[in-house]
Amino acid sequence: MQNNDLLAKIDAHIEENVDYWLEQLARLCAQPSVSAQNFGIAETAELVAAMLREQGFRAEVMSSDGNPVVYGEGDGTSDKTLLFYLHYDVQPPEPLELWDSPPFEMTRRGDKFYARGISDDKGHIIARLAALSAVRDVLGELPCNVKFIIEGEEEVGSIHMPAFVQEHQDLLAADACIWEFGGVDYEGNPTQSLGMRGICYVELSVQTASIDAHSGLGGSIFPNAAWRLVWALNTLKDENENILIPGFYENVLPPSDLDLELLGRLPDHSAQLQENYGLAGFLNGMTGGVELKKTAVFQPTCTICGLTSGYQGPGTKTVLPAKASAKVDFRLVPTQSPPEIVEKLRAHLDAQGFSDVEVKLLGGGRPAKVAPDHPFVKLAVETAVTVYGKDPLVEPIIGGSGPNYPFIHVLGLPVVSAGIGYPGSQVHAPNENMQLDYFILGIKHTAHIIEGFPRAE
Amino acid sequence: MQNNDLLAKIDAHIEENVDYWLEQLARLCAQPSVSAQNFGIAETAELVAAMLREQGFRAEVMSSDGNPVVYGEGDGTSDKTLLFYLHYDVQPPEPLELWDSPPFEMTRRGDKFYARGISDDKGHIIARLAALSAVRDVLGELPCNVKFIIEGEEEVGSIHMPAFVQEHQDLLAADACIWEFGGVDYEGNPTQSLGMRGICYVELSVQTASIDAHSGLGGSIFPNAAWRLVWALNTLKDENENILIPGFYENVLPPSDLDLELLGRLPDHSAQLQENYGLAGFLNGMTGGVELKKTAVFQPTCTICGLTSGYQGPGTKTVLPAKASAKVDFRLVPTQSPPEIVEKLRAHLDAQGFSDVEVKLLGGGRPAKVAPDHPFVKLAVETAVTVYGKDPLVEPIIGGSGPNYPFIHVLGLPVVSAGIGYPGSQVHAPNENMQLDYFILGIKHTAHIIEGFPRAE
Repeated sequence: MQNNDLLAKIDAHIEENVDYWLEQLARLCAQPSVSAQNFGIAETAELVAAMLREQGFRAEVMSSDGNPVVYGEGDGTSDKTLLFYLHYDVQPPEPLELWDSPPFEMTRRGDKFYARGISDDKGHIIARLAALSAVRDVLGELPCNVKFIIEGEEEVGSIHMPAFVQEHQDLLAADACIWEFGGVDYEGNPTQSLGMRGICYVELSVQTASIDAHSGLGGSIFPNAAWRLVWALNTLKDENENILIPGFYENVLPPSDLDLELLGRLPDHSAQLQENYGLAGFLNGMTGGVELKKTAVFQPTCTICGLTSGYQGPGTKTVLPAKASAKVDFRLVPTQSPPEIVEKLRAHLDAQGFSDVEVKLLGGGRPAKVAPDHPFVKLAVETAVTVYGKDPLVEPIIGGSGPNYPFIHVLGLPVVSAGIGYPGSQVHAPNENMQLDYFILGIKHTAHIIEGFPRAE
Repeated sequence: MQNNDLLAKIDAHIEENVDYWLEQLARLCAQPSVSAQNFGIAETAELVAAMLREQGFRAEVMSSDGNPVVYGEGDGTSDKTLLFYLHYDVQPPEPLELWDSPPFEMTRRGDKFYARGISDDKGHIIARLAALSAVRDVLGELPCNVKFIIEGEEEVGSIHMPAFVQEHQDLLAADACIWEFGGVDYEGNPTQSLGMRGICYVELSVQTASIDAHSGLGGSIFPNAAWRLVWALNTLKDENENILIPGFYENVLPPSDLDLELLGRLPDHSAQLQENYGLAGFLNGMTGGVELKKTAVFQPTCTICGLTSGYQGPGTKTVLPAKASAKVDFRLVPTQSPPEIVEKLRAHLDAQGFSDVEVKLLGGGRPAKVAPDHPFVKLAVETAVTVYGKDPLVEPIIGGSGPNYPFIHVLGLPVVSAGIGYPGSQVHAPNENMQLDYFILGIKHTAHIIEGFPRAE
């Protein structure tokens, strides 16, 4: 049973200090940290460590086989330990011309704050610090030990996180974990995610000549890298969204009855999605309901994220390109894995006559899910009811990816979400933003979980 | 019968003055004139007109529906008039990182001179002026009237040239025309081109959403612009180079017996092409001979010149692109025409379910050929024998395109080529260059044609 007076004091403390935390957030957003472009990474790791120390935690910047990882810790009055997984890197800001204010300068318009990474994931770093500060100030001490692991490669596939976790199992030992995101749906209902799809992000590239040629000279007789790429991609997926790589679906587990039951309770966001993204409709004539919800998260994907070849400027250039490449993102569902998919993709391209198309794995992570009946999951759900005044929507798995596999299956932790996001956040797109009310609610929810954690059995 | 002493004097004059003309060429190359990027166009037109006036010609910059056209003229001692068609615009210099010296700064390395446009087509503008200057200095006066039409949109398809010629038929009236290019093959044999393929350059674009989405969110349920583009492109041409647009080939004239005879006399450049462009081989297993030569110029093409969609930077960005586009260049042979091809392409995309793919015509021109037995063609061939000491190779049609259709079929002129090019020029590619010896030979050949022109019947 939680102490309502105590929680009310914590909530009041959070509201009184929101301006301070917005200043801290502006400070963090002003420091670019684009992992895909290796821009500002080391500086941001140092800044995050410094911000942890300013809040009274021990913190250090640890090296990994990739970008540095910020590790932090603090002591509490129980022997329980809560781990916060977060990331300090952000997506590239491009295309810059579609931003209404500079991406690395937090800008307020109405009740929204805009900056690259403000929702994904810098606002969550600040929300965790704000929640811990409020709980500690009100209680005098933290009720549990806390650990932070704040990585710098989440936006490029967290490629070194599994090995880092494996190597530092003792350091990271804990009893539960709060994930890097969380928030509300279109109606302001809090959401709870119990798993994530995996990812296998590859670059397909082909080179047919040492230099570009004049299209009038070579058009009829030279191989063309752009055509080779188009034909190769075309063999990967048909117009009905069937992925044509032999064996691609063989390790796909269908959703369980409980998964489908949880999906059935979730609201139908199809109309809002259509409006937010300006879609004429969904793939394969889907219009909403459980079918759309199920497809969105329980189906693996093959998404072209980028295409590049030849001349792309204004007007015309009559060139026959020597090189072409595509970025392709496969989202995986239990129990698919990146090495399996890369192997099957390579075999498929070879069998289709595309040995000239190179496959390079740029990022990968396995899919993972948490058991819905764990006491820590129940705590996260019950505290959400208190903070948001609404029943949370429990998602058995979400469409996105993250390195939750090693946390769930190596460290053996229940992992829950709590946070500041909302569907209009435009994460990964221009004008990424957060809304002030959801920022405050996300801090409160985090604080209530911390307060109740020592008693959750 | 030409006067050998006179020609020897002209040749000597050309050799004595080569440094002056190299300086003029450096001056012209230093002025960027990228029509695809609307960069330096007006400035270059004024510079070219000024350079004509410095050589004693009347010159003016005329407006057109597109970029300005430089018109020039000068009087001679006969009533015959020779028209020079040239262009002052150049291809974009990108990719800049592949240039070994700045593209807009003529740089000598050994006997080669490097700059964007040095061969295509600024070196030819200078070669015409150098030839006219030599003939006039040696003869005292020009033996014929001359006219210049120097346009600024050749590299973007000369889209306004047909209408300009149509509108200014009286101004441009002449008896023969020297085209903007010419030169030698891999063995240094002079070449003579009797026609050019047409071009129909389109942009295919598709938009499936108002903004990009997170690939984890939309990958299974949102339409993806890049996939739509790949699937649409795939319907245009198969892996055996068959263009699949219904009716595409119906206006294609096969080569005549004379065309094939001319092709048969041409040397086989397949080995040099393979080496220069670093090709593993030619399309469809072709290895050379008349089949390769015939395919290279008498087959229409469908070339992807550029692909663009989504994220193209380093590393990964997990984005589902809202927009995708391709630049596609169709080379046409007699009697295909751009409007016909655009119409058939549109109908094909609609029939294949790709009404969402927009087609925009960016540039077009019809194919055209000159009769090989015209006296002016014979003059161009005979003078080449004198200058180069070798029989010229007569190409019935070449793979490239240009606005020769209105000159041949509206003005009714025989059109021949003469110039400074060689197969290593890298036109349209980084490190475009010319070789000093071929520059001098191209000037001499042009001068000999001018000298003999009044007597050619």
